[in-house]
Amino acid sequence: MEIEIGRSKRGRRVYAFDDIAVVPSRRTRDPQDVSVSWSIDAYHFDIPVLAAPMDSVVSPQTAIMIGQLGGLGVLDLEGLWTRYEDPEPLLAEIRELPEGRATERMQQIYAEPIKPELVAARLAEIRASGVTVAGALSPQRTQELYETVVAAGVDLFVIRGTTVSAEHVSKTVEPLNLKKFIYELDVPVIVGGAATYTAALHLMRTGAAGVLVGFGGGAASTTRATLGIHAPMATAVADVAGARRDYMDESGGRYVHVIADGGLGTSGDIVKAISMGADAVMLGTALARASDAPGGGWHWGPEAHHSQLPRGNRVHVGQVASLEQVLYGPSPVADGTANLIGALRRSMATTGYSDLKEFQRIEVVVAPYLGH
Amino acid sequence: MEIEIGRSKRGRRVYAFDDIAVVPSRRTRDPQDVSVSWSIDAYHFDIPVLAAPMDSVVSPQTAIMIGQLGGLGVLDLEGLWTRYEDPEPLLAEIRELPEGRATERMQQIYAEPIKPELVAARLAEIRASGVTVAGALSPQRTQELYETVVAAGVDLFVIRGTTVSAEHVSKTVEPLNLKKFIYELDVPVIVGGAATYTAALHLMRTGAAGVLVGFGGGAASTTRATLGIHAPMATAVADVAGARRDYMDESGGRYVHVIADGGLGTSGDIVKAISMGADAVMLGTALARASDAPGGGWHWGPEAHHSQLPRGNRVHVGQVASLEQVLYGPSPVADGTANLIGALRRSMATTGYSDLKEFQRIEVVVAPYLGH
Amino acid sequence: MEIEIGRSKRGRRVYAFDDIAVVPSRRTRDPQDVSVSWSIDAYHFDIPVLAAPMDSVVSPQTAIMIGQLGGLGVLDLEGLWTRYEDPEPLLAEIRELPEGRATERMQQIYAEPIKPELVAARLAEIRASGVTVAGALSPQRTQELYETVVAAGVDLFVIRGTTVSAEHVSKTVEPLNLKKFIYELDVPVIVGGAATYTAALHLMRTGAAGVLVGFGGGAASTTRATLGIHAPMATAVADVAGARRDYMDESGGRYVHVIADGGLGTSGDIVKAISMGADAVMLGTALARASDAPGGGWHWGPEAHHSQLPRGNRVHVGQVASLEQVLYGPSPVADGTANLIGALRRSMATTGYSDLKEFQRIEVVVAPYLGH
Amino acid sequence: MEIEIGRSKRGRRVYAFDDIAVVPSRRTRDPQDVSVSWSIDAYHFDIPVLAAPMDSVVSPQTAIMIGQLGGLGVLDLEGLWTRYEDPEPLLAEIRELPEGRATERMQQIYAEPIKPELVAARLAEIRASGVTVAGALSPQRTQELYETVVAAGVDLFVIRGTTVSAEHVSKTVEPLNLKKFIYELDVPVIVGGAATYTAALHLMRTGAAGVLVGFGGGAASTTRATLGIHAPMATAVADVAGARRDYMDESGGRYVHVIADGGLGTSGDIVKAISMGADAVMLGTALARASDAPGGGWHWGPEAHHSQLPRGNRVHVGQVASLEQVLYGPSPVADGTANLIGALRRSMATTGYSDLKEFQRIEVVVAPYLGH
Repeated sequence: MEIEIGRSKRGRRVYAFDDIAVVPSRRTRDPQDVSVSWSIDAYHFDIPVLAAPMDSVVSPQTAIMIGQLGGLGVLDLEGLWTRYEDPEPLLAEIRELPEGRATERMQQIYAEPIKPELVAARLAEIRASGVTVAGALSPQRTQELYETVVAAGVDLFVIRGTTVSAEHVSKTVEPLNLKKFIYELDVPVIVGGAATYTAALHLMRTGAAGVLVGFGGGAASTTRATLGIHAPMATAVADVAGARRDYMDESGGRYVHVIADGGLGTSGDIVKAISMGADAVMLGTALARASDAPGGGWHWGPEAHHSQLPRGNRVHVGQVASLEQVLYGPSPVADGTANLIGALRRSMATTGYSDLKEFQRIEVVVAPYLGH
Repeated sequence: MEIEIGRSKRGRRVYAFDDIAVVPSRRTRDPQDVSVSWSIDAYHFDIPVLAAPMDSVVSPQTAIMIGQLGGLGVLDLEGLWTRYEDPEPLLAEIRELPEGRATERMQQIYAEPIKPELVAARLAEIRASGVTVAGALSPQRTQELYETVVAAGVDLFVIRGTTVSAEHVSKTVEPLNLKKFIYELDVPVIVGGAATYTAALHLMRTGAAGVLVGFGGGAASTTRATLGIHAPMATAVADVAGARRDYMDESGGRYVHVIADGGLGTSGDIVKAISMGADAVMLGTALARASDAPGGGWHWGPEAHHSQLPRGNRVHVGQVASLEQVLYGPSPVADGTANLIGALRRSMATTGYSDLKEFQRIEVVVAPYLGH
Repeated sequence: MEIEIGRSKRGRRVYAFDDIAVVPSRRTRDPQDVSVSWSIDAYHFDIPVLAAPMDSVVSPQTAIMIGQLGGLGVLDLEGLWTRYEDPEPLLAEIRELPEGRATERMQQIYAEPIKPELVAARLAEIRASGVTVAGALSPQRTQELYETVVAAGVDLFVIRGTTVSAEHVSKTVEPLNLKKFIYELDVPVIVGGAATYTAALHLMRTGAAGVLVGFGGGAASTTRATLGIHAPMATAVADVAGARRDYMDESGGRYVHVIADGGLGTSGDIVKAISMGADAVMLGTALARASDAPGGGWHWGPEAHHSQLPRGNRVHVGQVASLEQVLYGPSPVADGTANLIGALRRSMATTGYSDLKEFQRIEVVVAPYLGH
Repeated sequence: MEIEIGRSKRGRRVYAFDDIAVVPSRRTRDPQDVSVSWSIDAYHFDIPVLAAPMDSVVSPQTAIMIGQLGGLGVLDLEGLWTRYEDPEPLLAEIRELPEGRATERMQQIYAEPIKPELVAARLAEIRASGVTVAGALSPQRTQELYETVVAAGVDLFVIRGTTVSAEHVSKTVEPLNLKKFIYELDVPVIVGGAATYTAALHLMRTGAAGVLVGFGGGAASTTRATLGIHAPMATAVADVAGARRDYMDESGGRYVHVIADGGLGTSGDIVKAISMGADAVMLGTALARASDAPGGGWHWGPEAHHSQLPRGNRVHVGQVASLEQVLYGPSPVADGTANLIGALRRSMATTGYSDLKEFQRIEVVVAPYLGH
C-alpha cells in the first residue's frame, strides 16, 4: 500500500514482527509429529537455526555445541578469535566494562589486526569435531581473507554486512565482484543482509545458496536512530520470499534459501519469520542469552565497535538457561526465550502444520502490539 | 481488510477489545429495567458469567457460590482439586513462591497424577448444593476421564484447551473424535478455544451446545511472545458470531452459544464481548480478584505450569472485594474491576438496550486505546 | 470510514483530540486582533468558557469570579453546596483523604440529602454579584428540583449527565419529557452529554439552546474501563456540529450551540474543540488547576462518588496559577495549562483567523500523538 | 489521504520523521565517495548544516567554529548577545536555575532591551573570522533592526519565527511587507517557519532564497499542547519540497532552497529530512549537545521565555562530545547524536546514493516507531 507522506513523496507501509501474528486453522496436530528440519546445498540440519557470527554468540566451542544440537554455528572470522591467541580475558573484560566506557574500549580491543593463522586454526578446531563448518567475513574483508578461509576448509561460506549489495561502487578500491567470486568458489555462499525485493533478487542472481534478510533489527542495534534506515522484518522477509519465487521462475527452478537475520528475540518471532517465508533463522540475542554463550549475559555486534560511527550497543541480555534448554527446553520461563524449538513445534502443531515449507503458507493477521 | 505485509504475504487487520468501544444511541433506559439473563440447553442463568476452570478462580466451594449468585462455576478437573486430597496447603504455597521459583515449583506440584475418585467427589460436592454442575477437561484427557465425569454427574461438560479443533491429527495416539463423542454423550458440551470463523464453524458442526472463543488473551498468558499466535478478541468474537449465524442457516436453525473466553479483565471488556456477539463470558482474571477466590490474590492457568513449555505466568492480581461485590457491587473502586453486572446493566441502559440479544447489535467504534 | 472488525460486525473509526492538530494557513494575524467572544440566547460572553458544574471547579464564589472574568460558572445544584450549610470542611476533608479511602468516604459525604433552601440561597448569592447565573441538575433530579431553581432565578438552566437522551425509557418512574419541559420553561436550557450525531439531533429537536458534547472524557473519568463506552472528542464534536448544521436546515435556521464538555485539559485541546465546530467549551480539569478553585489541587466529578458503581476517581491535578492567570496569563509554565485564552488567541492569530465562527472552518490534520 | 474525523470535518493524515525510514536500494557505495555539500546563492557549504539561531546553540564564537567546520552558524540577533555586553554570566545562571524557577527568571533576563550597537559588534566579530555571516531576526523586529544588520554586514539574512507568513495582517501596526522588503534588500533572505504547501509557496513568491520548514517540532517545544498546532516534519518537508517544484515551474526555473528546521535530534532525522526533499537542515538540539555549545548541556528557544505565553522549556540535553566530533566523529556513542555527517554519508552510501540532490529521491517506507 503506497501512502502519500507529502506532496512530493510517497512511501509504502511496512510491518514488523510485532505487527503480525499467526492464527490457528481448523486442524490441530501433535507437536512431536512436526518436522522442523531443513537443508541447504548438501547440508541437512535438524533445526532451522543458524547462530549469528558475533563474539557474544559463537566461539569455536559454541559452534561445535550448536552443530551437535542440530543447528549451524557461524564463526565471525573478524572477531576476537582471529585477532587474539587467547580472547577469553578480553571477553571477560568487555562484559565488565562500565556503561559509559564500553564503546570506546571495544573500539580499542577490535583495532587489533586479524591473524590469518588464527582464522585457519579456529576453523580447523570446529572441523575436528565433525560438525558442519561455517565462517563469516564482511564484504570488505572477503577479498583479503577468503583464500585462507577456503584453505582452512569451510562447508558454508557466509558474507555478512549490515547491507550487502550485488553491486558495490567504489572510487578508491576495486570492490568484490560477488557474481564472479561465487562462481569461482567451490563452497556454497550465504550472503546478506538484504532487506528489499530488488536487493535480494540481485543477490540471488550472483549464485548465492542463501540470502540473509535483515538490516540491524536486533536488540543491539541503533541503526534506525543513527542512519535513518529501517526495514521491519515481517515485510522484509515476505518481500525476499517474493524475490525467491520470482527468481525460481527466471532461473528455471533454482531455490535460494531465505534466512531471517535480526529482530528474532523470542520463539514467537521465529514462528513469524517462517510464516513470512523464511527457510531458517539466524539468531543473535536469542542465543546470547544461553548461560554457555561466550558473551556471558552480554551481547554485541560488529557495529557496536565501529571505529568512527558505532551503530549499536553492548547490551545486557541476561542468562536464561543452558544452550540446550534454550533450544529444546524444558523452559524455566514463560516469555518465549527458552525452548525455542519446542515452541516452534507447538505453534506449528496448534495451527495444524507438519513441516516448515507448509508453514510458510500459514494465515497471518495484522494486529499491532502496543504493549498491552 | 486484507493488507499486503510483503510481496508474498497478505494478512487481515484484526482488533482487540482495547481497539473498540460501544456508543450511546438516541435512547436511554433505567439500569434496573435491563435483563442480563441467558440460557444454554435447559439451563437458565441470571447473569452471563461462567467462571473459568482455573485453580485460582474455581474451587468446589466457589463453584457453589457462583452458582448461587446466578452464574456458572466450571471446575478444572485436571487441577489441584482432583490431584490432591487437600489442595489448600498447595494453593497457599503457590501464592507465596518467590518470583524466580514459581514456574519450576508449579511444574512439580502439577506433576502429581489425577485421581478419578477425587473427580467424582468434587463434582458430587457441587451437585449436593443444588447449583448447576460443570466440569472441564482438556481434549487430551477427555477420552481417559469422561466416563468418570459423566458417572459423577455433570449438567454441562466443558472441553477446554488453548486451541481445540474439530479435527486433531496424531501419528501416535488415536485422537478424540469430537463429533462422535458429543453425539454419544447425553450431556451438552461446551468446547473451545477457537479463535477463527472456520475453526468455530467446524466445532459447531460437532454438535456442541456452546463454543469458547479465545486463545490465551488473558493477563496470565504469554502466548503471543511464545508461540507467535494471537487472536485479538473483538475480531475473534465477531468472527465466531458470524459462524453461529452461518451455521444456523446451514443447520436449519440450531443456535450454538458463543462464549468469550479470555482478555476480559474489566466490566468494559464484558460489555464489548457482548457487543461483538457473545452470549456470555468466561471470566478468569476478573473473578480471581475476588477476596474469596481460591487464588488469594494470585492467578494462573494450566499453561503456566506446562512441563516443557510454560506459556503463562502466575500473576499477582490483588483482591478488590468479595465475589458478591465483584459481581453485584457496591464497588469500592472505579476501574471496572468490581460491580461487573451493575456496570453491564448501566452500559446497556445508557446506550438504550434492554436485553443481551439486542445489545449484540449495538453500534461500535474503532478507537485504539493508546494509554492516554 | 467503516471498518470490518469481524465477520458479523463493522465499526466506524473515530478520533480523539490527541489524534488531530490544526495547521497554519498562508496568513498570520496579531493575537490582539482576534475575537474570542460568543453569545447564547441573550447572553454575551467575552470568552467561550463555561466552568463545569463540579465541586472541585465551581463554588458560588468561583462562579462569580468566572463571570467577572468573562466566562460562565455553572454551579452543580446536586453538589456539596446544596447538601451542606458549610461545605468548606468537607472540601478540605476530601482533598486530604488517603488514596484507598477516598471513593468510600466520598460516597458517604454525598449521601446527605439536597436542601431546596440551599439551592435557592446559592443561586441568590451568585445573582447578587451581577454575573450571569447558571445552575446544573442531572436529568434524574430535574423534575424534583427545577421549580426551586427557576424560582431562585437562573439565566441559563443546565441539565447535565454522562449521557442524556431526548427519550429516556423507564418502567418504574415517569421520566422527564425534555421537549415538554423545555417548551414550558422560560429559561434557555443547555443539555447533554451527547456524543453522537443522532443523540444530539434529537436533543436539538427538544428546543435546547445548547448541547453539551462529551461522554466522560476527562482526567477524572474511567468510563471506558467501566462501561466500555467511549466517544473520542474530536469525532464527537464534529458529529454534533454536523447535527447542528442539519438541524438548522430542518428547523429553518435555529442555531443550537455546541459546547465541548470533557477531555479539555490544555489550551491546545480548547483550540481543537473549536476547530471541530464547538462554539464554546466546558472546562473541568483545566480550571480545577487554578489555585483559587474549590478543589484545592484535587478534582472529581459526580461519577466518582456514585453509590453503587463509581466511574471516576478523585485525581490530584495540582495548582498551576490563579484563576485569572489560568485564563489570561502571564503563564508561569509552558505545558498549555495556563493562559488558556492567550493561547487560543495566539493559535487563531498564527493560523490566520479572527473570530471563533471562522476558526471552526480551519484545516486540521490527523497525526496521532504517541507520546514522542 | 483525507480522513473523515466526524460528520462535519475531514483531515489529512500526516507523518513525522519517526513514522518513516529510508531503505537500501540494490547498489551500495563507499561513504568517502559521497558528497554532502550544498550551495545557496553565492555561498557554498561542505555540509548541509545550519546552526539554529538560539542562545544555547550559537554564540559569535560558535558561529565561527561552525563556519570553519563547513556549515553555517546563524546568530540570534534578539538573544543575549545583543541585549548584554557580557552574556556569559547569564548563560551560566540559566543553566543553573532550579526547575520551577527557570521560565520566570528567563522571562526577566530576556526583558532587557536589544542594543543596536551590540548587533553590529557581534556580526563584525564573526565577519572578522572570514566565515560566511548570517544573523536572524523575528518578523516583528525586522523592520526595526534590519538596517543595523545590513550595515554591519551579513551574507545571509534570516527571518525566523514559529510561523512566518507572506501576508501578516494587523490592525495596530503596519506589518512587514516581505515581498517589498526582500526585493529591496541586497542580501539573500532565508525565511520561515512554514509548515504547509500554501504557506511555503507564498513565501517563495516573496523572492526568498530559502524557506525554513518547521513549526516547533524540537525537543524544547510544547507547541502541540499549548496551541494545538502541529506539523509533523516528514509531511511538512515533502509538502514544501512540492511547493519548490511547483514554484520552479511557475517562476521559470527559480530554485528556492528548502531547509528543515525542527525535530532533527539525531543523524537519522537528518537523513530523513533530506530524503523528504530538504536541501539542508537547521539544527538546534543536535548541536546544543556539543560540549563547546554555549548552552553548556542545556537548550532553549525564544518560545521558552515568551513573556505571556511560554511555549517551550529549558531542557537538559547533556554534552555528548566536542562540536567537531558531533559533526565528524569519531563518535563515542551509538544513538545518532554524534558523527552526524559521518552517519549521513554512511546512510547515503549504504543506500547507494552519491549526492544530496539524488538522495532526495530515495525510496522511503512508512513504519511507525512505537518505541520497540
